[in-house]
Amino acid sequence: MQAIGVGMLGYGFMGKAHAHALSTLRQLDVPLRPELVAIAGRDEAAVAEAAWRYGFERHVTDWRELIADERIGLLENLGPNALHREPTIAAAEAGKHVLCEKPLGRDAAESREIFERVAATGVQHMCAFNYRFMPAIRLARELLEAGELGEIHHVRARYLQSWGTDASAHGAWRFDAEQAGSGALGDLGTHVIDLVRYLVGEPVAVSALTRTFRDAPGLGEGGVDDAFAAALEVEGGIVGTLEATRWATGRINGLQLEINGSRGALAFDVERLNELQVARGRFFERVLVTEPEHPFMEHWWPPGHIVGWGDSFVHELGHLLTAIAGEGTVAPHGATFEDGWRADEVAAAIARSARSGRREDVPRG
Amino acid sequence: MQAIGVGMLGYGFMGKAHAHALSTLRQLDVPLRPELVAIAGRDEAAVAEAAWRYGFERHVTDWRELIADERIGLLENLGPNALHREPTIAAAEAGKHVLCEKPLGRDAAESREIFERVAATGVQHMCAFNYRFMPAIRLARELLEAGELGEIHHVRARYLQSWGTDASAHGAWRFDAEQAGSGALGDLGTHVIDLVRYLVGEPVAVSALTRTFRDAPGLGEGGVDDAFAAALEVEGGIVGTLEATRWATGRINGLQLEINGSRGALAFDVERLNELQVARGRFFERVLVTEPEHPFMEHWWPPGHIVGWGDSFVHELGHLLTAIAGEGTVAPHGATFEDGWRADEVAAAIARSARSGRREDVPRG
Amino acid sequence: MQAIGVGMLGYGFMGKAHAHALSTLRQLDVPLRPELVAIAGRDEAAVAEAAWRYGFERHVTDWRELIADERIGLLENLGPNALHREPTIAAAEAGKHVLCEKPLGRDAAESREIFERVAATGVQHMCAFNYRFMPAIRLARELLEAGELGEIHHVRARYLQSWGTDASAHGAWRFDAEQAGSGALGDLGTHVIDLVRYLVGEPVAVSALTRTFRDAPGLGEGGVDDAFAAALEVEGGIVGTLEATRWATGRINGLQLEINGSRGALAFDVERLNELQVARGRFFERVLVTEPEHPFMEHWWPPGHIVGWGDSFVHELGHLLTAIAGEGTVAPHGATFEDGWRADEVAAAIARSARSGRREDVPRG
Amino acid sequence: MQAIGVGMLGYGFMGKAHAHALSTLRQLDVPLRPELVAIAGRDEAAVAEAAWRYGFERHVTDWRELIADERIGLLENLGPNALHREPTIAAAEAGKHVLCEKPLGRDAAESREIFERVAATGVQHMCAFNYRFMPAIRLARELLEAGELGEIHHVRARYLQSWGTDASAHGAWRFDAEQAGSGALGDLGTHVIDLVRYLVGEPVAVSALTRTFRDAPGLGEGGVDDAFAAALEVEGGIVGTLEATRWATGRINGLQLEINGSRGALAFDVERLNELQVARGRFFERVLVTEPEHPFMEHWWPPGHIVGWGDSFVHELGHLLTAIAGEGTVAPHGATFEDGWRADEVAAAIARSARSGRREDVPRG
Repeated sequence: MQAIGVGMLGYGFMGKAHAHALSTLRQLDVPLRPELVAIAGRDEAAVAEAAWRYGFERHVTDWRELIADERIGLLENLGPNALHREPTIAAAEAGKHVLCEKPLGRDAAESREIFERVAATGVQHMCAFNYRFMPAIRLARELLEAGELGEIHHVRARYLQSWGTDASAHGAWRFDAEQAGSGALGDLGTHVIDLVRYLVGEPVAVSALTRTFRDAPGLGEGGVDDAFAAALEVEGGIVGTLEATRWATGRINGLQLEINGSRGALAFDVERLNELQVARGRFFERVLVTEPEHPFMEHWWPPGHIVGWGDSFVHELGHLLTAIAGEGTVAPHGATFEDGWRADEVAAAIARSARSGRREDVPRG
Repeated sequence: MQAIGVGMLGYGFMGKAHAHALSTLRQLDVPLRPELVAIAGRDEAAVAEAAWRYGFERHVTDWRELIADERIGLLENLGPNALHREPTIAAAEAGKHVLCEKPLGRDAAESREIFERVAATGVQHMCAFNYRFMPAIRLARELLEAGELGEIHHVRARYLQSWGTDASAHGAWRFDAEQAGSGALGDLGTHVIDLVRYLVGEPVAVSALTRTFRDAPGLGEGGVDDAFAAALEVEGGIVGTLEATRWATGRINGLQLEINGSRGALAFDVERLNELQVARGRFFERVLVTEPEHPFMEHWWPPGHIVGWGDSFVHELGHLLTAIAGEGTVAPHGATFEDGWRADEVAAAIARSARSGRREDVPRG
Repeated sequence: MQAIGVGMLGYGFMGKAHAHALSTLRQLDVPLRPELVAIAGRDEAAVAEAAWRYGFERHVTDWRELIADERIGLLENLGPNALHREPTIAAAEAGKHVLCEKPLGRDAAESREIFERVAATGVQHMCAFNYRFMPAIRLARELLEAGELGEIHHVRARYLQSWGTDASAHGAWRFDAEQAGSGALGDLGTHVIDLVRYLVGEPVAVSALTRTFRDAPGLGEGGVDDAFAAALEVEGGIVGTLEATRWATGRINGLQLEINGSRGALAFDVERLNELQVARGRFFERVLVTEPEHPFMEHWWPPGHIVGWGDSFVHELGHLLTAIAGEGTVAPHGATFEDGWRADEVAAAIARSARSGRREDVPRG
Repeated sequence: MQAIGVGMLGYGFMGKAHAHALSTLRQLDVPLRPELVAIAGRDEAAVAEAAWRYGFERHVTDWRELIADERIGLLENLGPNALHREPTIAAAEAGKHVLCEKPLGRDAAESREIFERVAATGVQHMCAFNYRFMPAIRLARELLEAGELGEIHHVRARYLQSWGTDASAHGAWRFDAEQAGSGALGDLGTHVIDLVRYLVGEPVAVSALTRTFRDAPGLGEGGVDDAFAAALEVEGGIVGTLEATRWATGRINGLQLEINGSRGALAFDVERLNELQVARGRFFERVLVTEPEHPFMEHWWPPGHIVGWGDSFVHELGHLLTAIAGEGTVAPHGATFEDGWRADEVAAAIARSARSGRREDVPRG
């Protein structure tokens, strides 16, 4: 079996998730075996510990060393948003394949630049919208592609978390516009925007409002949005609602999705990510997406033995490695950098509508 | 025990629900016993059959006979929307108490006129938003009033039905603008608007879109809206979404409500109307609203023996009779004609926003 | 339309449920209209108040006056278990049709006597197992009869309530063997035994244990059973479990049923009595049993507008009146007195097995 | 950090689960880092492939080479039941710590021998009942130990799968008494027996029946049991039911557990293994067991990001390594070989009761 050298930038929460996925992938049937070459981070002690723990051969404190390392064929950019642009483009221009965490850029313009410059190099590129790689979401896409829901009339997508109400979290960098760019919109909203695009179609226009609940200056004055709500029009006359918030008590990681078509419907909640509610007739059936024929299940256990959130990264990276091996393509099931950019355009239209009080079109250009 | 004579205008689906409630109320502890005096309808054979079935002493084919009947102390106007204004005002001006089905008028202006002219007479008036009288909704109000959810941040309210996708229903009068005024907005939307007002507060502004899915002229040209979606701002900076549709496959009578506050949350679905999901800490508890201390349960069975949709009319009419008896007031738990009018103002703002593409304020006047 | 005079013995909780059903039936399409002739009870003030409230023409303090009243064609015996035998037999022998609450007799022998003597008269007789008249249970029967589940392998039936843990209830007559005969076994257990018989088949043998949790003399010494559990064999080699208790905290009125066949499965919980979980393939579909074609729904509201526990009595009495009118039969969908007796034989076998420590056959005789 | 050499016997489904757990543990904070020394299996090509895939340094075809390898400090015996006894005892007598899959022996006598001979050596021993290591199950134990449910009255435990109804599976070795020993009882039943012992207490007596649904000779004549059901008495007067089957259509991996005490209740289903239903008062709260303070969550993701079935092995092996490192003990949270033996004694009593038709005591000896 052929191998590929992996370089990783960043070693926090996302680094842990990706490292766990890479070690698991070494035990599974993928056409390219990942070799963990080097990991980069600014704090040498911390990155050294991460390298030992995750099994990287070496660690570096300057990401440019990853670019210079010829053994590295794939760069995973898991760094903070401000570090997405430069290393990602540099890696691609050095001929390395690239994965970058979402949101791709700090704004839609930066995202577009990253996409266009990387696409020009011809390498494989993937924006890490991992929810596409949950078995239930892939199954939803398959059902939709097969026309089992008929003509689509509605989509309802929301990402509801509640940690914002915890006062002790209020000082976190995630609330600071300088560091985070936006709040719930970029962090949570882009996930649901991407799923709407993946499953239903291109958003055409949004009518939105945003809100900052904390005792802090408003959006654009140092404090990020805590929540947004939008009425959404998707191509083909589909009516939708879109929402994200960190203030929805009772919901822990409530990414909830519902799609209604002329012949059936789907519903999903990431808190029960192994289940897809499927209505083919009048009523919903609770499909436990763990059957042998279900997406990604060839990697796992017998029916009813559920997978976890972290396992979506195994599927995501397996998909990317398969594409790099030439046995598939990132699109349409993986999000490319174009998808990363287009999600940011929708987010930008939402922010614009919230400010203008008008329905705003999503640019297609 | 004192009695009150009831006159009923209309004998369709709503007539059946109200007649069932009146006969049940005669077996329960309410301070005023309803006597079924007369029922009015245009088709004499049909109204005669209804009178016999429901137990009215006589039937009439001209509603003016109800107004003239001095034995009638309460008029229940369950007729089509076009018959709301004149008989309701006439009854009130004749000194009769009045109940009128929703929506109160065919538009906000007519609703306001009905409210103002009836209010001027001093009789008791009630707009029949029966969902306020589900035990779980009343319990929700009690929890909110007691401050158990803290400061409210979010409301999510939608009314999802699916019968619109049934082609055989397409010719129904409910799709005709002449007869119905509006579609999902007036029929379903006003129910959720009223619940938002009852539980959360006054809507301040809406950003909305509407849609007609059928092969029919658009809204305002003979065909009514099949669905709407709105981003909603409620007084106090509360962020909401509001939606109604007859095209949501998988949902049968899905009036769904969620409210998130700083200290807890509530969730409700009328398909499981005996349950209120209550989060006081991190997680939702499934409260079966059938305990002796729960609202309206003094009328019914032991714990866990659930009530039905039709029983909400028993509670509604019991509430009105208690107010007429002078042992309570219609407001705040019952919807008065003012509430009927204000709900129509919100619906009007939604329709306006859908046309203008702008965020529209709800007039407070 | 023809009418039938009804006499009622008893005016407590069950009297209220039946009176509510009778008044509702007068508004529905049944071939025989019930006229409320007389109600009997020992406490004159109380029975007079009940007569006025429920709409009976007169009240009596001696049940023999009901037997003597020629206008009465149907006796509803809702009295305490000790008053089941004599009035029921007397009424039948006087040519009146009879309904009797469950359990039919104080023990299996008394039940058999009531059944045999009443059956000999030729009147219609019904033992009031009202759960057979929930739409979801009738639908379950229809699916089973149509063979949609294939060959049945398993049944799991339990009736879980929790009020026993409430210390203040400990003195209630329901805990006294003299007055109540048995505890959870007769009160709750017979309901699930009847449903197993109605839906799955005749119990053949049971291996059981019973328990009294209170600080009270054991079963047979003045204190009744608080709970029982049994492994159950049903004809055809079906494996089952059977359980009832008043001590299952977290469950309010948890009559839960599951049936697994070679081609599908059913699950039901009376706390959500409008829903039937139906697995035709691998997974359960949540059927909301409120469609126009669903059992009993011709009496009620549009889809998704659920019925309550009390409405099962409307269906039950409507079924009996239809049988009396000669337009149907009590069996198989209604429980006859034979069904009442056979349920008591299963209960007796459970009590016997708990004492003997042996698997006990259920006599078929 | 110190390390320990691991030898593995078997490389099928369980080998995959354990190998995945070992590679994950190398990235987590456990006091002993597992080194993958050697894996044994009879088919050299297959075991060589497994060694490469899972990262073992070498493979062998004779398990005695694992015993002889001084670098191995822990033997994981994941082989078929017939290979449990000899290698496990040999490893322990060579001073190696041992983990053995369940059921420990082919019958209770063999289990007892394995337990006693291994216990005599002083090594750490663990029977791989992995469900104890699901966060929700550990949380249940903590709540029970803290007395939050009060005095326990009921336990209901069942393991419902449905693959037996798939005709193509009928020839599988799991249905053969020679190879498998027993059917649902040993394979699924011991899991629920162990959970009852871990959470509630020692079973005292059982009244049971077993069944073989296939067209095959009965239990003890070449065909194993397909299902059993038992009424169960647990020490302290607790009433229970116990059941396992491979024929429960609609259930995929339905290990379901409910415990009712005087002050509250718990319910659990392994198909939603991240959730524990907890009733502290009247109603169940759905606890998503992913909070930072929940068991095992220090290893994983932010709240609401659920774990999978396979992750329970990470917790299980981490627990064992911690015990081997001297920083804890296998008991009480892990199952020792004594627990493995005692579970088999309960299973034996169930089989005995099914044959005798009598309530059978579980020996305590």
